[in-house]
Amino acid sequence: MKNKLLHEVGKILEDLRVKKPLVHHLTNYVTVNDCANVTLAVGASPIMADDIDEVESIASISSALVINIGTLNKRTIASMITAGKKANEINIPVVFDPVGAGASELRNKTTETLLKDVKMSVIRGNMSEIRFVAGLAASTKGVDASESDIENSIEERRSIAEHVARKFGCIAAITGATDIVSDGERTLYLQNGTKLLSSVTGTGCMTTSLIASFCGASHNYLLSAAAGILSMSIAGELAKENSAAKGTGSFHIAIIDEISKINDEVIEKRGNIYEV
Amino acid sequence: MKNKLLHEVGKILEDLRVKKPLVHHLTNYVTVNDCANVTLAVGASPIMADDIDEVESIASISSALVINIGTLNKRTIASMITAGKKANEINIPVVFDPVGAGASELRNKTTETLLKDVKMSVIRGNMSEIRFVAGLAASTKGVDASESDIENSIEERRSIAEHVARKFGCIAAITGATDIVSDGERTLYLQNGTKLLSSVTGTGCMTTSLIASFCGASHNYLLSAAAGILSMSIAGELAKENSAAKGTGSFHIAIIDEISKINDEVIEKRGNIYEV
Amino acid sequence: MKNKLLHEVGKILEDLRVKKPLVHHLTNYVTVNDCANVTLAVGASPIMADDIDEVESIASISSALVINIGTLNKRTIASMITAGKKANEINIPVVFDPVGAGASELRNKTTETLLKDVKMSVIRGNMSEIRFVAGLAASTKGVDASESDIENSIEERRSIAEHVARKFGCIAAITGATDIVSDGERTLYLQNGTKLLSSVTGTGCMTTSLIASFCGASHNYLLSAAAGILSMSIAGELAKENSAAKGTGSFHIAIIDEISKINDEVIEKRGNIYEV
Repeated sequence: MKNKLLHEVGKILEDLRVKKPLVHHLTNYVTVNDCANVTLAVGASPIMADDIDEVESIASISSALVINIGTLNKRTIASMITAGKKANEINIPVVFDPVGAGASELRNKTTETLLKDVKMSVIRGNMSEIRFVAGLAASTKGVDASESDIENSIEERRSIAEHVARKFGCIAAITGATDIVSDGERTLYLQNGTKLLSSVTGTGCMTTSLIASFCGASHNYLLSAAAGILSMSIAGELAKENSAAKGTGSFHIAIIDEISKINDEVIEKRGNIYEV
Repeated sequence: MKNKLLHEVGKILEDLRVKKPLVHHLTNYVTVNDCANVTLAVGASPIMADDIDEVESIASISSALVINIGTLNKRTIASMITAGKKANEINIPVVFDPVGAGASELRNKTTETLLKDVKMSVIRGNMSEIRFVAGLAASTKGVDASESDIENSIEERRSIAEHVARKFGCIAAITGATDIVSDGERTLYLQNGTKLLSSVTGTGCMTTSLIASFCGASHNYLLSAAAGILSMSIAGELAKENSAAKGTGSFHIAIIDEISKINDEVIEKRGNIYEV
Repeated sequence: MKNKLLHEVGKILEDLRVKKPLVHHLTNYVTVNDCANVTLAVGASPIMADDIDEVESIASISSALVINIGTLNKRTIASMITAGKKANEINIPVVFDPVGAGASELRNKTTETLLKDVKMSVIRGNMSEIRFVAGLAASTKGVDASESDIENSIEERRSIAEHVARKFGCIAAITGATDIVSDGERTLYLQNGTKLLSSVTGTGCMTTSLIASFCGASHNYLLSAAAGILSMSIAGELAKENSAAKGTGSFHIAIIDEISKINDEVIEKRGNIYEV
């Protein structure tokens, strides 16, 4: 399966660069600049707009919507719900990043409300966040997955991804050492990346923005989710090889460099993805 | 005219670095860090403050005000109006960046309100945004100019810039392949820069911050607007030559590097500006 | 005293990297990404959360709290007070950065309220900000110390630091050419760093985040404050040596690089700290 999947991912990337989809973000103020720059780097176009009086207009001109609750507040939560409903109505994909779900009641309730009111196309999170989404006990360490959750066996993680995908009729993407992407029927394992990606804030958020960029260019959301994760993981590997010795500041910049240079050849050469 | 104009721009830059004007920003949370760093890089001093209870105090100690509606919301719109009126009252220049004007009713109405309530010294935008300001049909692609608007002939664009400048009694600056700066009487064409500047988010916002930095140091707002645009364009060219091969992350950092190193010699050597 | 102090600082750094404390930030949107990345670079884990409905939950899972008023507004001021009280209740250190205190009534009143309602473990500011905290006349230049305040003699500054430390029962840290850290009894002078640190926005904020990271790993807040300042100052020196010639964008990235590589050896070799 490997070459065929990578070939398809490469094709979606080329499509994305032709279509340049506009990706509407309701996201956090910590990593927003990186989300915008990584969206540009992969070939899409970002727009950040979160006032409730304009999120419907902006969603209407966009090809995909990101909802990221990293620094949620009551004003932006209301905007997220409104934007998500509009995206559903006009049939553009919604990619949800439940940052820190499990870490506070506000994040938990907001996650539940969003999942009830908005049909998500893709939910991407770390193991702790996706455990919360699945209705399982989750122990987060703030916005990072907890050690105990990371230790779930790969079979457990697969079964959680499949459960979430079926429960919400969406693609579930759990990022970690082995990334798992499932639509409830088909499940993909992705094995690129480097632990060093966790030394830079927002590599998860950026992955979500990349997934949304791909979803804005292709109706195959399973492969779009895989493409977004692969792009970040491969960029991380290349950035590590070229820049990690300089430190985490340079590694951060190199991630964006590599995303801007990635193409189908790099993906086919380095990608490690298989269906199980 | 060329050498004289560049010589004057170089002189304003040297003045700016002596005066170190404080530039008050009400701006968006996507590119705010770059706006602050580029303000420092050119030699001015940034302060970001947007609570309605302090914008008047902060404006009062500042030499210029930036109003950028990139991620406007009802709270900050009220603060923008209050800050703008205070700036008018105390006679410091206001530089307005109508980010995404034309893309939503909220942006349109806010732009209209700000133009009605606040006397702007400089309005800088892309072709779609300035078309909206001019009262013409504008088709934006989110926060970027649309393809059709970019195709306006240079004569059309010049006439729109002159119209906006006369209508609002300000400097109108349209940035694009050829930048146009007009006070309604005198019109300058600037031909530096690189398409690559659009691969980094916020190069427009940064240009606005640079313009405000120059306006805070010189009462010649026509030349200050030209100086801000030239600084960004020339920095973009140099950053492209030195760093673009590495990718857009490195190119982004190199833009700020080049702004911090720019001087009158570089401007006189590379600048391409003429009066028409 | 020198070697013993540096040795202790080096030990706290090694502790920090084992404990990986979670550092809750209520901070500004200008420098928040750098604050998060520098927290990761030194070995701690950042979480930014500012909705009043979750700040208590987030504080409860954290090891330290940063309150930074750089872009305060009425919503976040209320959250800061609530978070600070909770941190006091559960006995985690609060590190306060009164950005721009003295520059507006809103900043002044907020600083006073926070100092009344929340017991701070460390207050870090520039000379103008700490003068305001001390109840002395302060003349700020926006968020930077004014020239006149910088000219306070080192003895004056020491006496102000001691006064603030005693008045609020905390560590007072004044950063500048010579940094002063005092608990009211013991006072340390630190003489690393470079003027170039002021050419990048947020190096003060980042220093505050570093102090909080150290405080989250050690109950010796005097040394933790010194450790945070030393880390930034030494990183600044190394970044200057390696990258300053490229410009301030590269210098900015190099600061984070150096923080991520700093260790007890570098601190013992380059640190310049003495007790007076």
